[in-house]
Order: sequence, then structure tokens, then C-alpha cells
Amino acid sequence: MTTWLDLPADHPYGVDNLPYGVFSTADRTPRVGVRIGDWVLDAGAAAELGGMESGEVWLQPSLNAFLAEGRDAWTAGRAWLVEQLTNEARRDSIEPHLVPLDQVRMHLPFEVADYVDFYAGEHHATNVGKIFRPDGDALTPNWKHLPIGYHGRSGTVVVSGTDIVRPQGQRKAPSEPAPTFGPSIRLDIEAELGFVVGGATALGEPVGVAEAADHLFGVTLLNDWSARDIQAWEYVPLGPFLGKSFATSVSPWVVTLDALEAARVPLPGQDPQPLPYLRGDERSVFGLDIHYEVVINGTVVARPEYRDMYWSPTQMLAHLTVNGASLRNGDLFASGTISGPQKETRGSLLELTWNGTEPLSLDDGTTRGFLEDGDVVTLRAWAPGPGGSRVGLDEVTGTIQPARQR
Amino acid sequence: MTTWLDLPADHPYGVDNLPYGVFSTADRTPRVGVRIGDWVLDAGAAAELGGMESGEVWLQPSLNAFLAEGRDAWTAGRAWLVEQLTNEARRDSIEPHLVPLDQVRMHLPFEVADYVDFYAGEHHATNVGKIFRPDGDALTPNWKHLPIGYHGRSGTVVVSGTDIVRPQGQRKAPSEPAPTFGPSIRLDIEAELGFVVGGATALGEPVGVAEAADHLFGVTLLNDWSARDIQAWEYVPLGPFLGKSFATSVSPWVVTLDALEAARVPLPGQDPQPLPYLRGDERSVFGLDIHYEVVINGTVVARPEYRDMYWSPTQMLAHLTVNGASLRNGDLFASGTISGPQKETRGSLLELTWNGTEPLSLDDGTTRGFLEDGDVVTLRAWAPGPGGSRVGLDEVTGTIQPARQR
Repeated sequence: MTTWLDLPADHPYGVDNLPYGVFSTADRTPRVGVRIGDWVLDAGAAAELGGMESGEVWLQPSLNAFLAEGRDAWTAGRAWLVEQLTNEARRDSIEPHLVPLDQVRMHLPFEVADYVDFYAGEHHATNVGKIFRPDGDALTPNWKHLPIGYHGRSGTVVVSGTDIVRPQGQRKAPSEPAPTFGPSIRLDIEAELGFVVGGATALGEPVGVAEAADHLFGVTLLNDWSARDIQAWEYVPLGPFLGKSFATSVSPWVVTLDALEAARVPLPGQDPQPLPYLRGDERSVFGLDIHYEVVINGTVVARPEYRDMYWSPTQMLAHLTVNGASLRNGDLFASGTISGPQKETRGSLLELTWNGTEPLSLDDGTTRGFLEDGDVVTLRAWAPGPGGSRVGLDEVTGTIQPARQR
Repeated sequence: MTTWLDLPADHPYGVDNLPYGVFSTADRTPRVGVRIGDWVLDAGAAAELGGMESGEVWLQPSLNAFLAEGRDAWTAGRAWLVEQLTNEARRDSIEPHLVPLDQVRMHLPFEVADYVDFYAGEHHATNVGKIFRPDGDALTPNWKHLPIGYHGRSGTVVVSGTDIVRPQGQRKAPSEPAPTFGPSIRLDIEAELGFVVGGATALGEPVGVAEAADHLFGVTLLNDWSARDIQAWEYVPLGPFLGKSFATSVSPWVVTLDALEAARVPLPGQDPQPLPYLRGDERSVFGLDIHYEVVINGTVVARPEYRDMYWSPTQMLAHLTVNGASLRNGDLFASGTISGPQKETRGSLLELTWNGTEPLSLDDGTTRGFLEDGDVVTLRAWAPGPGGSRVGLDEVTGTIQPARQR
């Protein structure tokens, strides 16, 4: 497919991608936008004039109304966008609704309903087990039978570019007699993929693996900021809480599952075979070939590969609902940290520095065990598109601000 | 204070109580209502005619807009209601807006933003520790230093009366070689108190113990339905997930913190003294003298006492935000299971039957280890009001429906 816009055929934001976000400008209130090249299409304005049904929902300040319309509307919306951007006859109608990317402000693309963070990376879970439970088995006995997950704080999911204030909290090393309070001294990142859910379901009605993709609208890059010292002291027995809930950052552009068609790959392999409700054919159980870079202050410190993940996103969604839990439009679930077998593919400082014992060297000559105030952390990623093209997943970035003293 | 309504002075829903809910009738769309005796005041309709500022927000289908107005508006709203219901001169204006309680349908009173479940009962945590970790210390080392909590699923919080479908899921007893899938066979309740939050805060700005009550609008009774077999297999290392996320029931009437003024009591005592950010004077750190009954199929099986709880709700809120996590209007946090030192004050079947090994006898001659299909579970409660009156907290009820076969 070629567009009438002046874009190289292999541009990472060409007509094979068309990610959705929410943007505003000096004279446009926040609304849904579609990225094409270095422009943002004011999709609602263009669609209203073009008689497109989704026009109204695209004029909303979040993607939630569009998410509510479900898979058929998503497919129709994409087909309409492709037609507008590839048919030269539509050029005069569409061009006035293109805004240069450098003139827009990007917002959180959807109102987060429930946020669940999974733990679907075998290498990450193994590394964490070795670091925190050196005397036991690295993986807990349940790990290969179900995608482990927990609920996180929806209200502190923020869009890329939002500053991250260093959290304060309690910590206690095993050797210390009592806990102390202060700014986290082991502030970390987790490179993850976030899945954006639509097509709400009713309470008591599980979504099977085969239907799960109908509820997966698309993906964002996600940085699950983590205060390791706070987390280590609090997490037994009910799981992570304040070590995670201060902030979770997502990229502004939601890349649709449709745009990742060419990036689907088989999973690395599941042994033992999971229970029947987690099984599916190769169309419904899949991995994604997404290549990440983790960048701290300009230095690429890791290159995680999403294809190393153990559980399929459809298995995560089926598991999440198998007890009858309902889905809402705007539900977000994250993959867990993306780490592979090689050291350079680890998606957290905890693993990259082995809990701070093997500091990383940055290009500016400094070293890092964990994050320092002022550090700028960016995750960026791309996936293969059709015919050798690339689908860009943009980036999620954040700068560490000093803890606030009360 | 006496009302012009025909109510006994010590009625549990007299002018000392005035809980808020959301109701509808055949000709009234869902809107905020205030309970007085066996009537519901259509507060928004009455207030619009009466020139009251909160009139508009009381016409909304949830309490969230009123929650957003904050403590001063809550105080003003309460004062206005008391005036309308005690001043005989207001009778002709107000009476047309009173609807008999048996003619209304009650709805979920607020849109739940983030839901956090704490674990603030020492006797409950001790019992659970003894049951699940018999070889270790009953309380984890962190328990007396911080109120342990985790995020639950906001989207499956339902109003009293909603049927509870028995969840399906994975379980594995330690003696079994592999997990199996099926309907939960250890379905349980947890008698808790839910705290409804308003007065949203910004990211990065903790709420201290002394200010916490300004963000506590009121309380609901809360049943944290729990599938113990699913929970036991899944919860290490990231905490409860599907064992809890299928449903959480709340009572329809939110009793304000103002109405619980006479129910404030000192905590049982905290040793060791917590870190400074969790300390406060007796006005800001307190327990609540709320008396519960747990009823299964008409038999009262337990009488938990909220005054036995270890952590103050203000300490829970201060802890929740100390890392900079923001509050949204409609945030809900629950106390954790309310259990006291006596067997008859335990708030879960897990504890009452010691993990099913000591079944309960019901008045109909049957016994229960855990819940059976068709069981009706009701929590009801009251607190002392001014001058020996009682403040009713209504009830939260649910009936167990059989698991759905796909």
C-alpha cells in the first residue's frame, strides 16, 4: 500500500502502522489522532466530513468510546483510514486535517479501567528468583502452569514524558533490626508491553483463548517503574504495592494488533502443556517479534526481545477472565519485564546489574546500579511490518525527579 | 436532633445517620438519594428547588461528583439535609421528594476508581498465617510496621444483591502432582469495612495521617468473596489475583465519617510504635466501634467487632499515598477481614471452620466448611450514635450461583 503523502515506502509510521493516540493543539481540544509519518490526522474531524461512523467517537478525549465499539468497528475504522490515505482522490479532503507532529501535545491515550501486570517472561522470573530467593527454586511451582499476575494502580498510569518523582517509603534489609523511611535507593525500570482492551464483557462470562484477540485493540510500550527496596520489604504475603504504585508510564501511540500481523511469531515453547483453557492453535496462541532498546541518558543499556516471552497475550487475557471477571473498555494489562537468555536482553536494572552488584557503564563515563535523580530513561521499539517494512512503536520516556520532602 | 418525620428518636436511619446511595424508581433515573427512616430523599430534586449548591451533583447517577467536591461540601451538604429534615417549616417542600424504600432500586453508589484491599486485622492475619504457614511465624516480619495491602479489581465491585457466580480456576494441593481446573471448592467470604475516598490529590503529593480524614467520605460494608483453593495456588509470589477478582460486594448505603463520630474509639494498641509518617494524635488515629453479624441462610455464624482492628483507616490512607500515589474520587479501600480474639468474632469461614476442618452448624441442620451453591450470605452492622442511639450500616448480601459451564 502506498500513500499519497510524501513518505518513504518503508517509513515506520506508514499506512501499515496507523497507531492511535489522543492529541491537542492550541486550537484543537484533546481528541483521537492517527499518526502517519510525521503528521497526526485529526481523525474525528476528517471522518465527520467523510461520513464515517466512528467520527463521533474519534472526537472524544480518550480512546475508550472507540474501544467500546469492538473488533468490527476497529477493522472498519482501519479500512477507512487506509482508503483515505492511499486514494489520491481523497487527498484534498484529508490534507487539511493533518497536523505536524511537532505542533501537537500528546495525552494519555485512554482512561485506564483496571490495570493488571503479568510476569510472563521466564528469564526475568528466573533471574528475580535467583536474586531474591537464592536458596530455593528460581521459578515458583505455579509459574509454568498459569500466567502469574496482580492488579496495579490504574490512577497512576501516566503518558510518556511525565516526570517521575522518586518515591519515599519503608525498607529493611534482612540484616537491619528495624525498617527505616526515606527516598527509595533502588529505583528501577521494567521494560514491558502493555495490551489495551476493548469490547467490554459481562460479569461471569470468561473470554476463551480463541476469542481473546477480539478484545485486544493494541499495544503500548510500558515502563513499570519499581522501587526495589520498598518492594522487597512489603511484598510478602500479598504482593507488590507501594514499590510499584507511584507511577507506570505508557507510550502515547497505541499500535493496533492489526498492524502487528507480520510480527506474530510462535511462542518459544511451553512445557508442560498448560491446562485446556490456556491452549489454542497457532492463530490464537502467539508471540510478537518486537525489538526493544532501553536507553539511559543516551546510552543503550539493553536490547530486550519480546519474542522471548513465555505466555501469549491471549493466554493472559483468558486467564484473567476464567474466574468470570468482566472486562471494561480501557482495561490495560502488561506483559511483565521482557528479558531474554543473554545479559544484554534483560529489561530491568535489577537483572542488568544483578541487584546493583555489577554496575553498568554509561557513555558519559558514569556507572549505574540503580537510577539517580535526573536520569532520563527511554524505551523504544519496532516490529517487522509487511514486505520488510518496519512498524514503529514510538517510545516511552521519563525523567527522575528528586524525592519531595514534606 | 428530632425530625418532623414520624420516626422513633433512636431509629438507626434517623437524622444522625443520613447515608448516601444511588437509587432509581419507575419514573426517576438513577441519582443520589439519602436514607431517612424507611424513605429515600431524592436529594438532588429537593436541593435544586431549595437552592442548595450540591443539587446538581446529587442528580448524577453516582456519588463521584459529590466526592470530588471535598470535605467542606460534604459538611455543608449534611448541614443542609439536617435542616430540611428537622425544621418543620421545610416539611411541605421536602415531603414530595421522599420515596418509600420499598419502591426504589439501589445501584452501586459510586464508580470505583482504584480498589485496594488491606490486611489490617491482627487476629485474621495471625489465623491465616497459622493455617497456611504452620511452620513459620504467624505474622510476617513487616506486618506490625506497615498496613499491608494490595490492589484488587475495581471493575468487579458490585452492589449488594448481585448474584455471585462460583468462579472456576486452577488449584493444586501440595500433595497433588499437577494442578487441576474446575469450580472452586473452597468458596469463602471476608467481612470487611470499605472506605470511600474523595477530594482527589495530585501525583507525587502524599496525604499525611492528620489530613487523611478529610479524604474519607464514608464507609460501606464489604464482602471480599474469596476462592481459597484458587488463591492458595496462585498467590506466591505476586499476591492474590483470580481468587479474589471475580466479585467484591458492597452495601448500597455509604455511611459518612461524620455519622460515625460517636463510634470513634482508640486502637487496641500498636507495639512497636510505627514510623513517624504513620503516627498521629487520638483525633487522627482511631478505630471504629462497629458491630457486625455474618449470616448464612438465616443463621448468625459470627459477630466480628471492628474495634479489634490493628491499623487506623487514616494510617492506611497515609501509607497508600506516602510513595506519591495520587487519590481519585471514588477510590475504595477495604480494611481486610475483621476478626477478633474469640472464635465467634472471626470474619471468614477459613477461620471459623479452621480451613474446613471444623464445620459450622446452621439452624437448618446442615453444616458448612465453605459455601455451597444457593447459600445466601449477608453481612449487617451498626455503630453507636449520639446519646445512645444506633447508626445503621444496612447490609451487603449475595447468593451463590453454580459455576457456569462453557
